[in-house]
Amino acid sequence: MGFTIGVDVGGTKVAAGVVDDQGAVVAAVREATPKTDPSAIAEVIATLVTRLAAEHPVDAVGIGAAGFIDTKRSTVYFAPNLAWRDEPLTERLAKVVDLPIVVENDGNCHAWAETRFGAARGCTDVVAVIVGTGIGGGIVLDGRLYRGGFGIAGEIGHLRVVPDGEACGCGQRGCYEQYASGNALVRHARRLAAAQPDRAARLLDAAGGDPEQITGPQITAAARDGDPVALECFAEIGRWLGEGLAGLAAVLDPACFVVGGGVAEAGELLLGPARAAFQATLTGAAYRPQPAVRLAALGSAAGIVGAADLARAR
Amino acid sequence: MGFTIGVDVGGTKVAAGVVDDQGAVVAAVREATPKTDPSAIAEVIATLVTRLAAEHPVDAVGIGAAGFIDTKRSTVYFAPNLAWRDEPLTERLAKVVDLPIVVENDGNCHAWAETRFGAARGCTDVVAVIVGTGIGGGIVLDGRLYRGGFGIAGEIGHLRVVPDGEACGCGQRGCYEQYASGNALVRHARRLAAAQPDRAARLLDAAGGDPEQITGPQITAAARDGDPVALECFAEIGRWLGEGLAGLAAVLDPACFVVGGGVAEAGELLLGPARAAFQATLTGAAYRPQPAVRLAALGSAAGIVGAADLARAR
Amino acid sequence: MGFTIGVDVGGTKVAAGVVDDQGAVVAAVREATPKTDPSAIAEVIATLVTRLAAEHPVDAVGIGAAGFIDTKRSTVYFAPNLAWRDEPLTERLAKVVDLPIVVENDGNCHAWAETRFGAARGCTDVVAVIVGTGIGGGIVLDGRLYRGGFGIAGEIGHLRVVPDGEACGCGQRGCYEQYASGNALVRHARRLAAAQPDRAARLLDAAGGDPEQITGPQITAAARDGDPVALECFAEIGRWLGEGLAGLAAVLDPACFVVGGGVAEAGELLLGPARAAFQATLTGAAYRPQPAVRLAALGSAAGIVGAADLARAR
Amino acid sequence: MGFTIGVDVGGTKVAAGVVDDQGAVVAAVREATPKTDPSAIAEVIATLVTRLAAEHPVDAVGIGAAGFIDTKRSTVYFAPNLAWRDEPLTERLAKVVDLPIVVENDGNCHAWAETRFGAARGCTDVVAVIVGTGIGGGIVLDGRLYRGGFGIAGEIGHLRVVPDGEACGCGQRGCYEQYASGNALVRHARRLAAAQPDRAARLLDAAGGDPEQITGPQITAAARDGDPVALECFAEIGRWLGEGLAGLAAVLDPACFVVGGGVAEAGELLLGPARAAFQATLTGAAYRPQPAVRLAALGSAAGIVGAADLARAR
Repeated sequence: MGFTIGVDVGGTKVAAGVVDDQGAVVAAVREATPKTDPSAIAEVIATLVTRLAAEHPVDAVGIGAAGFIDTKRSTVYFAPNLAWRDEPLTERLAKVVDLPIVVENDGNCHAWAETRFGAARGCTDVVAVIVGTGIGGGIVLDGRLYRGGFGIAGEIGHLRVVPDGEACGCGQRGCYEQYASGNALVRHARRLAAAQPDRAARLLDAAGGDPEQITGPQITAAARDGDPVALECFAEIGRWLGEGLAGLAAVLDPACFVVGGGVAEAGELLLGPARAAFQATLTGAAYRPQPAVRLAALGSAAGIVGAADLARAR
Repeated sequence: MGFTIGVDVGGTKVAAGVVDDQGAVVAAVREATPKTDPSAIAEVIATLVTRLAAEHPVDAVGIGAAGFIDTKRSTVYFAPNLAWRDEPLTERLAKVVDLPIVVENDGNCHAWAETRFGAARGCTDVVAVIVGTGIGGGIVLDGRLYRGGFGIAGEIGHLRVVPDGEACGCGQRGCYEQYASGNALVRHARRLAAAQPDRAARLLDAAGGDPEQITGPQITAAARDGDPVALECFAEIGRWLGEGLAGLAAVLDPACFVVGGGVAEAGELLLGPARAAFQATLTGAAYRPQPAVRLAALGSAAGIVGAADLARAR
Repeated sequence: MGFTIGVDVGGTKVAAGVVDDQGAVVAAVREATPKTDPSAIAEVIATLVTRLAAEHPVDAVGIGAAGFIDTKRSTVYFAPNLAWRDEPLTERLAKVVDLPIVVENDGNCHAWAETRFGAARGCTDVVAVIVGTGIGGGIVLDGRLYRGGFGIAGEIGHLRVVPDGEACGCGQRGCYEQYASGNALVRHARRLAAAQPDRAARLLDAAGGDPEQITGPQITAAARDGDPVALECFAEIGRWLGEGLAGLAAVLDPACFVVGGGVAEAGELLLGPARAAFQATLTGAAYRPQPAVRLAALGSAAGIVGAADLARAR
Repeated sequence: MGFTIGVDVGGTKVAAGVVDDQGAVVAAVREATPKTDPSAIAEVIATLVTRLAAEHPVDAVGIGAAGFIDTKRSTVYFAPNLAWRDEPLTERLAKVVDLPIVVENDGNCHAWAETRFGAARGCTDVVAVIVGTGIGGGIVLDGRLYRGGFGIAGEIGHLRVVPDGEACGCGQRGCYEQYASGNALVRHARRLAAAQPDRAARLLDAAGGDPEQITGPQITAAARDGDPVALECFAEIGRWLGEGLAGLAAVLDPACFVVGGGVAEAGELLLGPARAAFQATLTGAAYRPQPAVRLAALGSAAGIVGAADLARAR
C-alpha cells in the first residue's frame, strides 16, 4: 500500500499529514505560516515533512497551496497570500527533503480528494468549488485532474460574472469570488446591518453592536437559528454561487459539482439557494441531463489528502 | 491510410465530404436542409453518404450538428435549428447506412479539426470559439476532445456574461453569444445606423438606406475599407469576445484559443480588439504564461474534417 | 367652476371625458384608435370632443398621449404607438374644434391628476411611475408639473438600469421598463413556466398549457391566490421597480412616489417588494427623510382627469 | 447692489469670499478644515465670515458643503467628509454671526452659480455635474434651484449605473461616482499601469515607478501630451460620464448640462468621449431636441459664488 505525505500551505497555518492509499490521514502536524518570508515557509514545510517521515515510511510528498503552479508542478508563479513570486519550491525543498516532491494548487487538491475519496467518488467529470474567504476550484475531467495548458486551470473564482462589478484583489472587477464567497457573505451582512439595524438585531448583538465586527461564523449560527437577515445573506451568495455553477456547466458539463470550503459548512443554507439558482439559469435545462450539486465530504482534510494522493500518482 | 466521411448538418444545408487521414477533403457533396422534418434530414444525410461511399472506400461516418449530443454520440437531445428532440440519429441512419456512425457537436468538430490539422496543431489544450450567427465552441484537453459528463461540454456561447442582459434564444439572459456573435455585430450596426445615419452613410448605402437591411458581410466589407462605424462594430464585439476568452482562460487555461466561424473571416478586425480586451481583463495576467489567440485555418471545411476524423478515431 | 375636456389617446382606444374642477368625470365617451393613420386619430379626437362639447359647457381641451411633446404643448415629436412623427396635433384639431387645446404627455397627466386629486394630494414634489406594458412617468416639482427644457422630461422608463441589458423598443439596451413593467412580468412568468413546468402548473393551466399564452391578469390572479411562481414574478419586477425608485430618489428626492398603471392594480403584491428594494438600495437611507411610496388612487381615469385639469390651468 | 458672503466648506479647506450681485468675488480668505471636530469647523467659518464682514458691507451669508441639508437650509443631516451628523449649523453660527445665514449643498451652489453667471447663463433647465474625487450635482428647473421634497435632490453621484457594481462609500454598489469620477480615473490608470507597465511607461515615470502613486493631475498632463494610456483612462470615465448624462436626460430633459469640478479641467479630453457616449445612449435621440453639454466656466469659485448668490436670493 504505502504512505505519502500531504502538506496544505494556507495563509495562517501549514498543515501536514501522512495519508494512506485509501485517503485516510494516519498522522498530522501543523505550524503557523511565517507569512513574510518565502524561504521561512519552505523551512516550516521541511520541518513538518521531516518529522512525519521519521515516524512513517513514506514514498513522496505533495504540497498544496493557493496560487499559480507551473506545469512541472515545481515552481509557484504567484501565490497571493504567501508572498511567493516565481518561487522554486521543489528545488528549495529538495536540498533538505530526500523524497519525490510535487506542488499542486490547493483547489486541485480538494477536487482530487473529493473525487477519489469523497462526495464525487465514482464521477469522472467533477468541478470542485471551494468557498472560503475567496473561491478556489479544481477540475477533474475524464477521471484525471485537469491542470491546463500552463498549469493554472481551475481559477474559477476569477471568472467574471459582473462586467464593471466589484473590485477584486486580483486587479480585475466583477470576479465570481466577489459575489459568492465568505467575504461576500460578510460584506452583505455588514451592509444590511448598517442599513437596517432593527431587522439585523440578532447579528448586531453577536457582533457587540458594530456592523463591521460581524463574522462569517456568526452569520452561519444566526441562519441556523432561522434569523431572516442571516438567511437572506446566504440566499444572496447562494444565488450567485448557483448562477456561477450554471456558467461552469455550460462550458464544462460536469457530472458532479462538489461545494466545499469553510462557508460550505453551512450546508443547505448555502446549497439550497445555489441549486435553485443553478436550475433557473442553466442553459437548455429542459433538454439535458443535469449534474449533481453536492456538499464536500472531507472537510478541511481534503487539502492534505488530495496533495498526498496526487504525490502518490505522480 | 483509409478514408472516412464527415457530414456537417447546418440549418440551411447538409454538406458531406470524404476525408483522408491528413485532413484533406477528397470529395464533397451537399444538399439543402429539409428543416421541418427530422426524418427527412436523416434521409438527406443517408443519400449523401451513400453517394460518397459508392465512389470511395470509407471506414466510418462522422456527423456534426449544432445541438446537445449524448455521451454515446448517437442521440441528439436537442438541436435548436433542426427540430430534433431526442432524435435517435445513429439508429435511424443504421437502417440504411452500413458503416460505423458517430454523431458529434459541430463546435467539437471544429475544435478537433483545428487541433489536428489547423491553427492549433501541436497544442494539447485548445478552446475553439466559432463565431457565426451565434457562438459555438469545442474544448480539447490533454490532447483529447472533451465531451463532458453528459456529452454537452463546450456550450460556451451560453456562458452568461451580463446578469439580466440581452434575452437569448436559449431562454436565458446575458449569454456570451448575445454580445460577441455575428448577430450582435449586425444588431450593433443597425442600432448605430438608426441613431446616427450621417456617420453610418456607408453602411446605409450598402443596405439601400434601411438600417434593418444591413448584413454582416456589408459590415465586414465596410470595415476593411476603414469605415469608422463598421470598425466600431467590430471593436464592440471583439471587446466582448476577448473578455469572454479571459473568463474561459481563468477556468480552462488553454495553451491556445482558435477563433473561427463566418465572422472570423474578418480576421484582425475582430481579433485585434479581442486580444486587447483579453489582455486587459485576464486575471493575474502579469504572473502567468498566456495563451495564443489564433484565427482558425480550415474555414468552413472544419466541420466536415473534424467529424470525419472523430469517426476515424472512434 | 367650469368644465374642461380630457382626452386619453392610447394605442387601442381614445377615451374622452368632461371633468369638473374637483377632478370628477361627469361624462365620458370612447372609440377605437385608428392606429395606422395620423390624421384619422385627429378625426376621432375631434368627433369625441365635439360630441361632449355639445352637451356640456367646456372651456378647454387637454389631450394626453404617450410620446414626446414639444414645449408649446402643441406638436407631438414622436409617439411610438401612434405613428405620429412631428404631428402638428393642435393645429390640425384647431380647424374643427373651437376651443383652447393643449397636448400633454400621458405620464404627465397621470402625475398631475394624482397630485391634484389622488394619492399624492398635498405633496408638492411627486414622481409618478405608470407601470403598464412599459413604464411611463411624470414629475411634479414645487407643486408644478415639470416638463423639462424641451418638453420631454419624465421618460423614466428609459433610464438605463443595466448596462448592455435587455434590448428596448427605443433602440437602447437595459432600460428600466425592460425590468419593471408588465411586459417584464409576463416575460419572467413565461420563462419560468417553460423552464419549470411543474412548479408553474397553476399558471400553465390558466394559459391552456402554453407558456407563451400566459398573460398579466393571469399572473395577478394566481399571485392573489398565493401561487409561489406568480409571487416570484411580482417579487422580481417589484425589486427592479424599487431599485429604480431609489435611483430616482437620489436625483429628485421627491416627497412621494405614486405607482399606477395596470400592473399596479396588483397592489401590495407589487409594492411590497418594491418598498423593500427601495429601502435596501437608497443611498444614505439611514441619514435622510424618506418618501412615501403609494398606490395610485385614480385608476385609468387619471389620464383624462390630468389632461383636463392641465387644460384648465393652461 | 449689495454684497453677500459665500463660504465653501471642503474636506481640506474652508474658503470664503465677498461676492457682488454680478457674481464677482471682491475679496477672499481661506483656512484649513479642522476635520475631526464639528464645532471647530463652525468656529473657522465664523472667523472667516467675521473677518470679511468687518471690511465689507454684507447682507447675508451662504454656506455650501457636501452633504444632505434640510429643507430649511439650516441643518446638515449628514456630511460624509466633515463628520457632521444632524449638525444645527445655522443655529450654531447664529450665536456669533449677526447676519442671515443659509446652508446649501455644494453641488447646488455650483449649479446655481453656473446658471446665473457661468456656462449655463440663459438656460432655465440645467443639470450641473461636478466631477471631483466623487461626483456631486445640482439641478435648476424652470429657472429655480430644485432642492427636492426633503432638501436632498441632486445626489446624482449615487444614481446606480451598474447593478452589483463597485462598492461605494455610501454603502451601496454601482453608484455613478464609482465609474465617472476622479477616483475612477485614477483607479483605472493604476490598474492599467500594473497590468501593462510597458504601455504605461509615461504614467509610471511620473509616479516614480509605483502604479499606486499615479495621481489625477499626472494623468491629465499625460493625456494632454497625447499619451495613449492616459487618453484611454479619460475615454473610459468620459464614456461612463456621458452614459450617465443620457439617463439624467431621460428623466430631467434639461436644456443644458454643465460639467465642472477638478477633473473637468481636462476639458475636451473628458467631454469629447462624454458627448459621444451621451449621443449613442440617449433614448429617442433621433426624435428630440438635445441639450448642450458644456464645460463649467467659473472653476472652483463656483462654490463661493453660488452660496453667496443663494443667500442673496434667500
